[in-house]
Amino acid sequence: MKKIIIIGGGFAGLNTAKGLGGNKDAEVILIDKTNHHLFQPLLYQVAMAGLNPADIAVPVRSLLAKHDNIKVVLGNVLSINSDDKKVVTDFGELSYDYLIIACGAKHTYFGNEQWEQHAPGLKTLEQATEIRRRVLSAFENAEKTSDRSLQKKFLTFAVVGGGPTGVELAGAIGEMSRYTLAKDFKNIDAKLTRVILIEGGSRILPSFSKKLSAWATRSLEQLGVQVWTNSIVTNIDENGLNVGNERIETTAVLWAAGVKANSIDADFTIEKDRMNRIAVTSDLSLIGHPDIFAAGDCACFPDDEGKPLPGIAPVAMQQGNYLADLISAELRGKPRKPFKYKDKGQMATIGRSKAITEFGIMRLTGFTAWVAWLLVHIYYLAGFKNRFLVVAQWAWSYLTFRRGSRLILEKKWRFYNGDS
Amino acid sequence: MKKIIIIGGGFAGLNTAKGLGGNKDAEVILIDKTNHHLFQPLLYQVAMAGLNPADIAVPVRSLLAKHDNIKVVLGNVLSINSDDKKVVTDFGELSYDYLIIACGAKHTYFGNEQWEQHAPGLKTLEQATEIRRRVLSAFENAEKTSDRSLQKKFLTFAVVGGGPTGVELAGAIGEMSRYTLAKDFKNIDAKLTRVILIEGGSRILPSFSKKLSAWATRSLEQLGVQVWTNSIVTNIDENGLNVGNERIETTAVLWAAGVKANSIDADFTIEKDRMNRIAVTSDLSLIGHPDIFAAGDCACFPDDEGKPLPGIAPVAMQQGNYLADLISAELRGKPRKPFKYKDKGQMATIGRSKAITEFGIMRLTGFTAWVAWLLVHIYYLAGFKNRFLVVAQWAWSYLTFRRGSRLILEKKWRFYNGDS
Repeated sequence: MKKIIIIGGGFAGLNTAKGLGGNKDAEVILIDKTNHHLFQPLLYQVAMAGLNPADIAVPVRSLLAKHDNIKVVLGNVLSINSDDKKVVTDFGELSYDYLIIACGAKHTYFGNEQWEQHAPGLKTLEQATEIRRRVLSAFENAEKTSDRSLQKKFLTFAVVGGGPTGVELAGAIGEMSRYTLAKDFKNIDAKLTRVILIEGGSRILPSFSKKLSAWATRSLEQLGVQVWTNSIVTNIDENGLNVGNERIETTAVLWAAGVKANSIDADFTIEKDRMNRIAVTSDLSLIGHPDIFAAGDCACFPDDEGKPLPGIAPVAMQQGNYLADLISAELRGKPRKPFKYKDKGQMATIGRSKAITEFGIMRLTGFTAWVAWLLVHIYYLAGFKNRFLVVAQWAWSYLTFRRGSRLILEKKWRFYNGDS
Repeated sequence: MKKIIIIGGGFAGLNTAKGLGGNKDAEVILIDKTNHHLFQPLLYQVAMAGLNPADIAVPVRSLLAKHDNIKVVLGNVLSINSDDKKVVTDFGELSYDYLIIACGAKHTYFGNEQWEQHAPGLKTLEQATEIRRRVLSAFENAEKTSDRSLQKKFLTFAVVGGGPTGVELAGAIGEMSRYTLAKDFKNIDAKLTRVILIEGGSRILPSFSKKLSAWATRSLEQLGVQVWTNSIVTNIDENGLNVGNERIETTAVLWAAGVKANSIDADFTIEKDRMNRIAVTSDLSLIGHPDIFAAGDCACFPDDEGKPLPGIAPVAMQQGNYLADLISAELRGKPRKPFKYKDKGQMATIGRSKAITEFGIMRLTGFTAWVAWLLVHIYYLAGFKNRFLVVAQWAWSYLTFRRGSRLILEKKWRFYNGDS
């Protein structure tokens, strides 16, 4: 009986565990710092009040409940002790025969970490709820004031970063202000909302072809989103941000610009790239440590051209499945095969019923692409119930132009609630 | 054109506003400190992971959007200036011709307010999410430890207060541990969970008949809930609570014992009862102030026997409707009629598919009562979409014994997320 410890319950960790479920030679412990597996590709929908937190998150524990050889523990890993083959956690030490590091990534502000309080990123449910609070509160504040310049400030939204997340956020704000909120406010014209998408490079969605990227820009502009390319953010504070020499006054800056892998301590030097990702060999093991693997957003695996695979769900899922197969095979005395990534293409949505998708040479835009996007996301969404309820929510939003989860929740739970 | 200001978007305030919607002689401003109307009777379902926050909360703004004569503002009322007929808010002063105070109630700890951090009450969505976090975390912590006495402590839950909310919470924890969680944990036997319901009086649910109260006690006991009556809590700290001379070690104490009305400042003395509720005359106006009314949980209106009406949704709804009618009639020059409460009976649920209901002499227990409870709550739940999704969630939970919203969300949104 070999002990396998998995750090992280994201796509990579969860798929490794699932693949080892029921394996009589493997005893698996999955450690995660939250109790839920999060379907990150739809996190922007929670931030934009389209879905509930629970629609895209399922307890890791119940996803793996049917496998008797898997234990799920809520906890933090403090360090790896490779000499003794142990991981040190905040609930004691655990020994392993195989260790899988799949601890994911988080946002980075390129050395300006003080910007985070003014420009939240989007990696966790808590952050999504906070973004929702900020965006909806800005509309409420605009409604309340009669000062025109203050109103303009409240109705200005800046999204930093022109990747898929930035495009999805900007498109959703544009759409929400034009359709969902327009009739709910009496004092402001929500349609006058200004959404600015700021990208440092020469075009948005650089991983897509130039044609699709241009199509996405036009679609965003139709939703009232201004796309600023070649624009570098030089400062963010509580009243707005500086882009080159320009100043944008706003209370809602959203950050979708940079990602770096989460760190983990060890009794040996872990080789990393500039995004803090762990360098892995052809079988995803760490250099010099054939029993320790890294997978998903925290791993740096070069594709055939030597470019690291992107931090997206399909990569993490395939790596998780691969590691489960590798360990199962090795337990039966079989040799390791190298990891090969099968590119399933990429997709991004722009507001309601528009998207772009690219599968090899096949490129789709508009409604067809959006339907493809919808089907793929529903298919992969973990757990039957969530899939059903998410479809119900989407159908409702689509037919009524409303958003179901427009809650402003307080950032902190106050122990002593004030009166009134 | 008369100006009507409503403080609070609960059942009383919302129904007053709705009743005045479209009235050409009335200009209505509703002020609330949250952006949502909350269906409080189902709040315990959010705390017990059965429903999402957004399932029982709808933006007040969208509920009233169709009425051009109503404005909704997110804000806090600081005081009432009756001499100038103005309310002072954190966004300026507003003048009124009629003022409706419907600012609701919150929990009270009878002078032991320091208990609140160890024993949260259940009045807001934030509190419900916090209770959910504490209850689910206790099971996670029990799973993680191998120390038996610590495990016992984590698997002990105390609910203080034997009214409908306390009974609903205790029943739901008992049921969740027996059915939903039992198969998800490998290290603990969730069925060994100890739930203690602590009531100061001689029986739980004192507003119901003795027979129904006894039936509820037996049903709770079948779910593993110990019912302690005539038991007074003397201390609560982070490691548990003292009940008389007994000590209960637990990390999850829930408070459902006392309620007091929210306060509001004014330039005159507001007469109040011992629960801080505002004394009102037969037309719900304040003594000596015929243009200022109080309604819902913050008002003290005596029934025919001189006993104040309870703080429940039907009272607040009827009072809201009454005030809209009164103001509409007065604007047409008609005299005021006194408020009459139509008692629609009362109900309480005990876990899945059991309830008690009392309508006059008609008393129901068990499944029939639960179906009645379900129908009434679905009927009154505001907004078509929520009703539909809530039914979907319930059907799913009912058929599968699972709970859809088992998320542990961090209490504070951390600006600087730690690694790992």
